[in-house]
Amino acid sequence: MVAVEIFSIENEVFRLYLLYSSVVLFKMIFLSFYTFHVRTKHGAFISEEDYCKDFPRDEMKALMKNEDVERVRRCHRNDLENILPFLVFGLLYSATNPSVFAATITFRTFTIARFLHSFAYLLPLPRPWRGVAFAAGFLVILYMGVQILFTVL
Amino acid sequence: MVAVEIFSIENEVFRLYLLYSSVVLFKMIFLSFYTFHVRTKHGAFISEEDYCKDFPRDEMKALMKNEDVERVRRCHRNDLENILPFLVFGLLYSATNPSVFAATITFRTFTIARFLHSFAYLLPLPRPWRGVAFAAGFLVILYMGVQILFTVL
Amino acid sequence: MVAVEIFSIENEVFRLYLLYSSVVLFKMIFLSFYTFHVRTKHGAFISEEDYCKDFPRDEMKALMKNEDVERVRRCHRNDLENILPFLVFGLLYSATNPSVFAATITFRTFTIARFLHSFAYLLPLPRPWRGVAFAAGFLVILYMGVQILFTVL
Repeated sequence: MVAVEIFSIENEVFRLYLLYSSVVLFKMIFLSFYTFHVRTKHGAFISEEDYCKDFPRDEMKALMKNEDVERVRRCHRNDLENILPFLVFGLLYSATNPSVFAATITFRTFTIARFLHSFAYLLPLPRPWRGVAFAAGFLVILYMGVQILFTVL
Repeated sequence: MVAVEIFSIENEVFRLYLLYSSVVLFKMIFLSFYTFHVRTKHGAFISEEDYCKDFPRDEMKALMKNEDVERVRRCHRNDLENILPFLVFGLLYSATNPSVFAATITFRTFTIARFLHSFAYLLPLPRPWRGVAFAAGFLVILYMGVQILFTVL
Repeated sequence: MVAVEIFSIENEVFRLYLLYSSVVLFKMIFLSFYTFHVRTKHGAFISEEDYCKDFPRDEMKALMKNEDVERVRRCHRNDLENILPFLVFGLLYSATNPSVFAATITFRTFTIARFLHSFAYLLPLPRPWRGVAFAAGFLVILYMGVQILFTVL
């Protein structure tokens, strides 16, 4: 009977997982739009066919990478590298029967950490904000991974 | 009893999810092979140890990035950025008890959109094809995310 | 009643999935730290604000990409491209009711292949080690994908 409750909307921990993983994914995919916005602002596209009458190709700009665009892309990539493990570990962690309190703290810490990480990357904030935010999210992933291994072994 | 049916092969919506997520993942991992194919065709490897007798290192080619290779890699990266949210939201969306009709339209639209996106990127097709395909896939992700939040909240 | 047992810790195949996917994710996220380590070693950061008193900006180094750093990043990216499909297909493959023996071989082959791939990339090992490791992991993904499609269709 255990599994019935684990991945059910009646299960409070699974609902928390649904909520926080949705929020963090929304944040991540927002960066797709933001990349497009920054590219348009600077007229810095990478694919030849993206230039048009309104955005004519400027040889200088096209050859150089635009640092603002690259910054958003690094932020996005860092999200991919960290949010993927969170989503998978979070789902599996929900199956290890944690308390609602522990799950709330865990998911919320990760979510806040990743929002802080994005702000620190994009504004940018000075050291050590981005590093602290990264570390906080990373520790949540490690914590969930260890919980899963303890449950399995 | 709800959860029993949700992630079961007897559940039509979950079977649709299995089908479309497999198809879209097959498409994505095909790009790994395609990158290798284009690298080999142009003799444009990035890692030193990939050059060998049959593919000798050409200083000019090795220093310059090959635009055809970079195009496939951008296409692949865009897949990662979009297919990951689809896979996670799609799984969770399947748990929100959508109708078979709605789930079919949703999953199929995303799948067609991502195939179109890849074709538009690799051929390449002129504006606005790639943008339209991206937007269609993106809207499906947003739609599923909103459905999940409505169910949770 | 099938689904009850599938995603339950009592189900041996699901426990194997939990174990191997955790191990392979731990390996992947380790590369985040390793990138940071290599960047620090070479003083090669990409974001302006990462330079500080202890790591002053060196114009030459900042302009050139550091090959050691880029190598770790390529390795990390290849992990993302392959471990994401494994995690999703692995979860769905667990739902196709494979034997414990088949699941063990499948998950273990992938895990060994990805560890070998990382070693081959980072040491680096000469041809054809990285290619062999990549191919082995790739075949596992394809095998699981085909099993899922057979079950659904």
